[in-house]
Amino acid sequence: MRFPSPVSLTWMAELINAELIGNTSGMATGINEIHRVEEGDLAFVDHPKYYEKCLQSAASFIIINNRDVTIPEGKALLVVDNPFQSYTTIVNHFRPFVPATTSISESAVIGDDSYIAPNVFIGHHVRIGRNCRIHPNVTILDHCIIGDNVIIQSGTVIGSDAFYYNTKKDRESWYKRMLSCGAVRIEDDVEIGAGCTIDRGVTSETIIGSGTRIDNLVHIGHDTVIGKNCLFAAQVGIAGATVIEDGVILWGQVGVSKTLTVGKNAVLLAQSGVKSSLEGGKIYFGSPAEEASQKKRELVWIKRIPEIWQKLKSDQSGR
Amino acid sequence: MRFPSPVSLTWMAELINAELIGNTSGMATGINEIHRVEEGDLAFVDHPKYYEKCLQSAASFIIINNRDVTIPEGKALLVVDNPFQSYTTIVNHFRPFVPATTSISESAVIGDDSYIAPNVFIGHHVRIGRNCRIHPNVTILDHCIIGDNVIIQSGTVIGSDAFYYNTKKDRESWYKRMLSCGAVRIEDDVEIGAGCTIDRGVTSETIIGSGTRIDNLVHIGHDTVIGKNCLFAAQVGIAGATVIEDGVILWGQVGVSKTLTVGKNAVLLAQSGVKSSLEGGKIYFGSPAEEASQKKRELVWIKRIPEIWQKLKSDQSGR
Amino acid sequence: MRFPSPVSLTWMAELINAELIGNTSGMATGINEIHRVEEGDLAFVDHPKYYEKCLQSAASFIIINNRDVTIPEGKALLVVDNPFQSYTTIVNHFRPFVPATTSISESAVIGDDSYIAPNVFIGHHVRIGRNCRIHPNVTILDHCIIGDNVIIQSGTVIGSDAFYYNTKKDRESWYKRMLSCGAVRIEDDVEIGAGCTIDRGVTSETIIGSGTRIDNLVHIGHDTVIGKNCLFAAQVGIAGATVIEDGVILWGQVGVSKTLTVGKNAVLLAQSGVKSSLEGGKIYFGSPAEEASQKKRELVWIKRIPEIWQKLKSDQSGR
Repeated sequence: MRFPSPVSLTWMAELINAELIGNTSGMATGINEIHRVEEGDLAFVDHPKYYEKCLQSAASFIIINNRDVTIPEGKALLVVDNPFQSYTTIVNHFRPFVPATTSISESAVIGDDSYIAPNVFIGHHVRIGRNCRIHPNVTILDHCIIGDNVIIQSGTVIGSDAFYYNTKKDRESWYKRMLSCGAVRIEDDVEIGAGCTIDRGVTSETIIGSGTRIDNLVHIGHDTVIGKNCLFAAQVGIAGATVIEDGVILWGQVGVSKTLTVGKNAVLLAQSGVKSSLEGGKIYFGSPAEEASQKKRELVWIKRIPEIWQKLKSDQSGR
Repeated sequence: MRFPSPVSLTWMAELINAELIGNTSGMATGINEIHRVEEGDLAFVDHPKYYEKCLQSAASFIIINNRDVTIPEGKALLVVDNPFQSYTTIVNHFRPFVPATTSISESAVIGDDSYIAPNVFIGHHVRIGRNCRIHPNVTILDHCIIGDNVIIQSGTVIGSDAFYYNTKKDRESWYKRMLSCGAVRIEDDVEIGAGCTIDRGVTSETIIGSGTRIDNLVHIGHDTVIGKNCLFAAQVGIAGATVIEDGVILWGQVGVSKTLTVGKNAVLLAQSGVKSSLEGGKIYFGSPAEEASQKKRELVWIKRIPEIWQKLKSDQSGR
Repeated sequence: MRFPSPVSLTWMAELINAELIGNTSGMATGINEIHRVEEGDLAFVDHPKYYEKCLQSAASFIIINNRDVTIPEGKALLVVDNPFQSYTTIVNHFRPFVPATTSISESAVIGDDSYIAPNVFIGHHVRIGRNCRIHPNVTILDHCIIGDNVIIQSGTVIGSDAFYYNTKKDRESWYKRMLSCGAVRIEDDVEIGAGCTIDRGVTSETIIGSGTRIDNLVHIGHDTVIGKNCLFAAQVGIAGATVIEDGVILWGQVGVSKTLTVGKNAVLLAQSGVKSSLEGGKIYFGSPAEEASQKKRELVWIKRIPEIWQKLKSDQSGR
């Protein structure tokens, strides 16, 4: 999330009641997760295992629960007891929950020749381009951005909050939700079917690349980036923070796990499950997915087990 | 279903045109399915195979299509030709369909600091606790109960009717729907994603335990009881009358069959299918699901079949 | 799609700027895809591979990008550079997009004793029979037809546009959507769960046969024909132009591919995947689906691979 304007570190330290160490004169331009940080960003870390990664990231300012770390040149620490809580405080300050009072927010901007059907909800600061069709009972939540010539069919939800919890605590305690302050960006010429759900990024954007076509009841998780001209059949599910490159085809009921990459023009046959990154340009099948040609040979081999058994028995008796 | 107040058996016998035998002076306090009956309840049975189970259950009063059974001490029979039809008559009497005339029923009770977004439907006698967020285009149907601090994201449906049919008749005839007079109870601090569907109990309650987090496009069937602090990823489906104990994690697209139990803290890896009860505290994978470590060894063994085949052939030629 | 009244070929040729050859005095009664054409219909073809199939079909009039083909007796060609574009022109002329201005169109016809809940959208020219229950937040789009005694639960979308693209162009270019001018026809006594999506036919009808029961979050593709008294559990997905015959049972999360037939009274166990036609009267399991008894034996054989391996090793060492 970008702040509306750069914020002095001293002001920020006061907001979250932090001790400020290092380059105390800096100005923070936003806050982001470790995977998405840019120069000028705040990031936060609360586990020693990730201290170095966070300190060496592009983030300029680190919210941390330890003052005895080496501060990289030009960066600053904001030392607090509970960095996760500080993140929540900052998000609530810069992006407070604003109740909707009408179905279509007055702050929404809708381009020429775009059709908004009855029973649609459009949240605060949503931007919709030209020549779009938003069908009945669609929900587009705060801050989401829709390009030109986009079709969104009925019942679809754009910008639901991320399913992203801080699970470091023991299993008996409640999972702590990480507040979503990101959004969904849908590029031009995208078509989305009915009953889909596309979660917003936690701090950054979930992106659907131009020309991509999505069938019904498809789920796309937070911060996932979909390339251009992809084709997803019905009931596909893609977890969070994953990258689907251009031209990928996912057939019906395919599931893709989180934080991985499916390469350009890869094809996943129906009901496949992707649990690690896949090279582009190939056809895959199975759960876990393998190259389809290999998987099909495997299915043939399985059918030959009884034959192998018979052969083994006849060998013994014939010896 | 509890009746608003206890009902005399003689009145009930008149309502459904039944012959009353046994403890005719009793008062019925409700009607329930055989799995959920308590003392004071009516239950019904129409197949000889289940007569004894029903007669020996906690139900005090049995609607039955046979007068020649032994009546347990203190119980009563209501003998009719079609017990299933009698059930329908009773439900229609005590819980008649009441059309909604406004999006939010005047009989709904909504707690302090709860946000109800535009385009939400809230049915008759719904109760919502304090500090909840009900996002746009959510549907909460009659008699459902929502605790405190509950989040329900857009497009989700709470309290749809059970998918539960009397299928004893031959396949050519229509399935007969068993009317739903139960509800959904969502405990405190539950978070439910977008596009989910949670069916009401047939006569009792579907329950989501406190602290449980549910991602998008998840289906939960009638009378299913979910424990506390569970985590269900997107597109999980759980059939009716199943028990998911505390702390269970179901990853994406997992399916769970009906009337079984998944033990405490069990973890089901993505796309697994559960067709019978599973012990808690273990990690499972596959369809049907097995312990993940065993299933993974199995996948390795499958890849060795060609090697086994080669070995067998070389043994023969080398003999 | 039927035209409102028969249209002279000369008028049609002018609309799409075509050269007219053959029986130029004909009257076209509608336009349909090659699989659904009837006498009097226009059809279109743009690939030499399909020229003969289209010319020999029931279609009377062929929109084609080649004038040097043999015209069957009594038929006519409409020769254009881009038949796909001509199809789009015709659909836009006869079934132009008409924005909805109210939640329930004034042109919709709703039968006696039918209940339409709040927050429902009903499009232009929809017809709903008697004694139906349309629950809150349902969307029924233009031209769809609903029989008598039909129940549609909350959040369900009837008549979303087909997921059907012209993909002949190279993968880098955008997929071209084939406009949907068909509809959905739901016969009497059908019950549809919550959060389902049923796409309209591209030029013809998607049909749900009488007495069929459908659970929640089920997807049914364009032009698919479902028989009578079928039972589909939650999260089933059926692709386009497929035939499911009477009495078929699909358990939870089953996926069925496009343009195939599942025979009468077939049963598919949960999570099965159907990729080619299946005979009726049998029970199937797996992805790809096989007869369940055979599939179960196969699962047992897989578990015996380690035993086979041991046997093979002990044979060698014992020789």
